Amino acid sequence: MRKLLIIGIGAGNPDFVTIQAIKALNRADVFFIPNKGAEKAELQQLRLEICERFIDDRDYRFVDVPMPKREAAGSDYLGVVRDWHERIEASYREALTRELDEDQCGAFLVWGDPGLYDSTIRIIDALRANGFALEYEVIPGISSIQALTASHRIPLNMIGEPVLITTGRKLAEGMPADIGTAVVMLDGEQTFARLAAEDLDIYWGAYLGAEGETIIAGKLAEVADEIAATRERLRQAHGWIMDTYLLRRPKSG
Amino acid sequence: MRKLLIIGIGAGNPDFVTIQAIKALNRADVFFIPNKGAEKAELQQLRLEICERFIDDRDYRFVDVPMPKREAAGSDYLGVVRDWHERIEASYREALTRELDEDQCGAFLVWGDPGLYDSTIRIIDALRANGFALEYEVIPGISSIQALTASHRIPLNMIGEPVLITTGRKLAEGMPADIGTAVVMLDGEQTFARLAAEDLDIYWGAYLGAEGETIIAGKLAEVADEIAATRERLRQAHGWIMDTYLLRRPKSG
Ligand SMILES: C[S@@+](CC[C@H](N)C(=O)[O-])C[C@H]1O[C@@H](n2cnc3c(N)ncnc32)[C@H](O)[C@@H]1O
Ligand SMILES: C[S@@+](CC[C@H](N)C(=O)[O-])C[C@H]1O[C@@H](n2cnc3c(N)ncnc32)[C@H](O)[C@@H]1O
Repeated sequence: MRKLLIIGIGAGNPDFVTIQAIKALNRADVFFIPNKGAEKAELQQLRLEICERFIDDRDYRFVDVPMPKREAAGSDYLGVVRDWHERIEASYREALTRELDEDQCGAFLVWGDPGLYDSTIRIIDALRANGFALEYEVIPGISSIQALTASHRIPLNMIGEPVLITTGRKLAEGMPADIGTAVVMLDGEQTFARLAAEDLDIYWGAYLGAEGETIIAGKLAEVADEIAATRERLRQAHGWIMDTYLLRRPKSG
Repeated sequence: MRKLLIIGIGAGNPDFVTIQAIKALNRADVFFIPNKGAEKAELQQLRLEICERFIDDRDYRFVDVPMPKREAAGSDYLGVVRDWHERIEASYREALTRELDEDQCGAFLVWGDPGLYDSTIRIIDALRANGFALEYEVIPGISSIQALTASHRIPLNMIGEPVLITTGRKLAEGMPADIGTAVVMLDGEQTFARLAAEDLDIYWGAYLGAEGETIIAGKLAEVADEIAATRERLRQAHGWIMDTYLLRRPKSG
């Protein structure tokens, strides 16, 4: 049966790669590279470098997988994402059928950890549910959350306290009153700025683990402007940005 | 100045170790090994094996750090933990003063990720705040949450939805109504059993990544008894257990 490895490569630093991931890289015959457009070209480059650096003497090849464009998400966020995922599924199916032989092993290299705000597992699951015969494994990777707390040298949680992992879109509804620590991902809108009236500490990081890593921490009210300005400057300079932040109520544990 | 590395070694599988962690292991002169008692002897063994396997030709030594006992936590959970941390801080201070020279590099090997329900960062911070001069770095590691979702081959979050990371103690207050996915750690009480009346899916795992890894998934109401019985059987057989689980409201995304 066709075999597929969904390999977490860590979020930013090539040294985040695990021994388990390296072993998996060395099992793959074909690497499927979803083509996410010029903006993310630097990230694609990192994938190729990881293969070159960690794969021993062994034949492998890359296959570009066209990625359908996502429509702008209006009120029906979930509907738009689901429709988009269906089109990605069709594209994956086409690529796997054409490029992966019955006895071969394919791989997707997933940024960070494959479990965290990434659609690869979900799409492969859907493929299988729709009758595409495929064995697969998931290899965990260091996520941007871990890169963030390590760079700031802070614990994720306060003693015995919960942590909410959320998105900019959800945070726009407010920081839940019973939550002492929230990590915010996928925020293109600098949603933290709307919470500047609350008593919160912020730990922000962009391009974590990678060249250009930039971190800022402090009282949200005091550093919100600095973060917003830095983010905009970096986004202009690089042409793209990836950032994540942790919000904490002081004395929450 | 004295230098200290807080190195995440991953939660269970020695192959979870990252290249970054291996480089860090190879910088350390002294490994401080908190002595957590016979029950966790297997876990200590793994630390020694990791050093042996990944450290190249280089001198290093191990220093046992006595770990004060934690008092039983009654109603004042935080107070008991804080008092315990102060005594650990004193023990760490004593060991670092005695065993680490001014120009040397020490290391703590932390199970999983150092940010997640681990006190090492907090204690080193407190030491420094109390005047102990020390430079330090934190190296992220694969956490048990990532080991859990990878073994079950599931995404951590539903599309665009938040995730709550919490403890058995907190879950005992109930699964928050607005939370679709919760990951539960530090649960010695099988708290999931109390929620069996709710419509939830559970993905449970013990000794993740390690020998004896056992996973069970299904509708909570249908598998709760099986998980409880399996957990008890394994705990008896090994003499100790480490388990984690994810609860998900079906159709939450
Ligand atoms: C589609 S999600 C993928 C997350 C990834 N699977 C992980 O484990 O980190 C992309 C979001 O992750 C965060 N992110 C990923 N890599 C990052 C990095 N190196 N620095 C800062 N944020 C990052 C950003 O919030 C970004 O919007
Ligand atoms: C003190 S916390 C440390 C967590 C660790 N820093 C991490 O990143 O996973 C210990 C808890 O982690 C979970 N845990 C750690 N390793 C595990 C494993 N290999 N399998 C299952 N659960 C694990 C259990 O819930 C356990 O009660």
